[in-house]
Amino acid sequence: MGKAPSKSTSRASCVGPKALPLPIFDKLRDRRVILASASPRRKEIFATSDFYPEIVPSTFAEDLPHSRFQGRLADYPIATGAEKAMEVYERLVKDNEYDPPDLVISADTVVIFPPEKDTAEGGQFHGEISEVLEKPINKDEQARSLSLMAGRQCEVITGVSIVYPTIEAPGFKVQSISASTLVQFYDNSDETIRAYVDSGEGIDRAGGFAIQGLGGVLIEKIDGDYNNCVGFPSAAFWRWISELDADGVFDEAWRE
Amino acid sequence: MGKAPSKSTSRASCVGPKALPLPIFDKLRDRRVILASASPRRKEIFATSDFYPEIVPSTFAEDLPHSRFQGRLADYPIATGAEKAMEVYERLVKDNEYDPPDLVISADTVVIFPPEKDTAEGGQFHGEISEVLEKPINKDEQARSLSLMAGRQCEVITGVSIVYPTIEAPGFKVQSISASTLVQFYDNSDETIRAYVDSGEGIDRAGGFAIQGLGGVLIEKIDGDYNNCVGFPSAAFWRWISELDADGVFDEAWRE
Repeated sequence: MGKAPSKSTSRASCVGPKALPLPIFDKLRDRRVILASASPRRKEIFATSDFYPEIVPSTFAEDLPHSRFQGRLADYPIATGAEKAMEVYERLVKDNEYDPPDLVISADTVVIFPPEKDTAEGGQFHGEISEVLEKPINKDEQARSLSLMAGRQCEVITGVSIVYPTIEAPGFKVQSISASTLVQFYDNSDETIRAYVDSGEGIDRAGGFAIQGLGGVLIEKIDGDYNNCVGFPSAAFWRWISELDADGVFDEAWRE
Repeated sequence: MGKAPSKSTSRASCVGPKALPLPIFDKLRDRRVILASASPRRKEIFATSDFYPEIVPSTFAEDLPHSRFQGRLADYPIATGAEKAMEVYERLVKDNEYDPPDLVISADTVVIFPPEKDTAEGGQFHGEISEVLEKPINKDEQARSLSLMAGRQCEVITGVSIVYPTIEAPGFKVQSISASTLVQFYDNSDETIRAYVDSGEGIDRAGGFAIQGLGGVLIEKIDGDYNNCVGFPSAAFWRWISELDADGVFDEAWRE
């Protein structure tokens, strides 16, 4: 026997009073929206839109082999993000079939060096191989990674997936987008890099830096969306789900 | 008769414990550094470097005629910023000649549309004239400005000036830099623009938008430094004054 049905009206709205008066926010106001990520940065980015999803971190291991994505590394964070969103959606439905999520949002951010456009045939650094940079394993590895990138660009890609309920099996649908931002580093000296590494920041970040923190001084410019570098391409996301909504994609999922 | 000398040792350090261990922060630790700006955003940007200058807003009217800078509008915020820094430096020296500032920092941010590179001969929009966009005078003007920029770029330029003491007349020296960031707007619909204008945000900002707030959803990407759009080109600034310091520019000013 299932648990007693939850009343959706007892839930605080995920849309704050200062959110833009756009159709998508009216639609989501009384919906159960989940962010499948423990990242405080993603939560903050949503808060700048006055949007407050429920936080349910995924337990997906995030261990897809990079080799499967060679030559199209941008697909790697999409694949990881989709797994995270599905894991959370299925778990929540199992926990309480009477209160399924209306929308689960996940994101996965990776740093690629050199940018794939530069290593593909004809690219600026043709002959090099683009790699996904993980969190550095220690300070020496962090310094090595930042030295490699000094005076050059890396590519920050966030894959975003959404899961929403459908009537047909398996009972949900997944859709994904990704966004890419190029980050140009200053030709940072070893002294500056060592100073940054010694600050302790960045050791827990892919690529070994945080643009929004002390690491900002290492970076000359970006080409792309800033929030995407921090961890979530907010503007592209809202545009995307507004379009999906206008196309009627959520009509079945969000029917009263 | 002058006031009793202030003891510089009674002042809290402007450099926080988490600041990067760079030579410039060691030099500034016990200095009197003034930020000649009331902008809470600039204060926040300095705080991300764990740096906390004294805040002394300028009383300079900021009414230099734009016409004086036609064809080189980027010089306009530099000129305004320099006036602000000098006004504050001279006022503080007059207030207490025994505790002159060691460094006054000012900044002025303007929005130029279309970007000057696009209207100069050969530019993409040759034939149009670049203008400095002021704070909109009302919501209709704000909507008009955002509609003009929809699907196009504007240029955000911050001029930064520093003033520091010298022995020779007039007793101080001014130096300036500026930084430019291109902001690409989505082809925002009238509905989206009206929703943004109705939110009340941006009415007090040059160009009528705030990239770090709700206005972020209007913007597809930037090319340049994000903090510069918000109001202060932090990374370029620290690099610049580190270089000035390495060149010995402050040796006389900051002598013990």
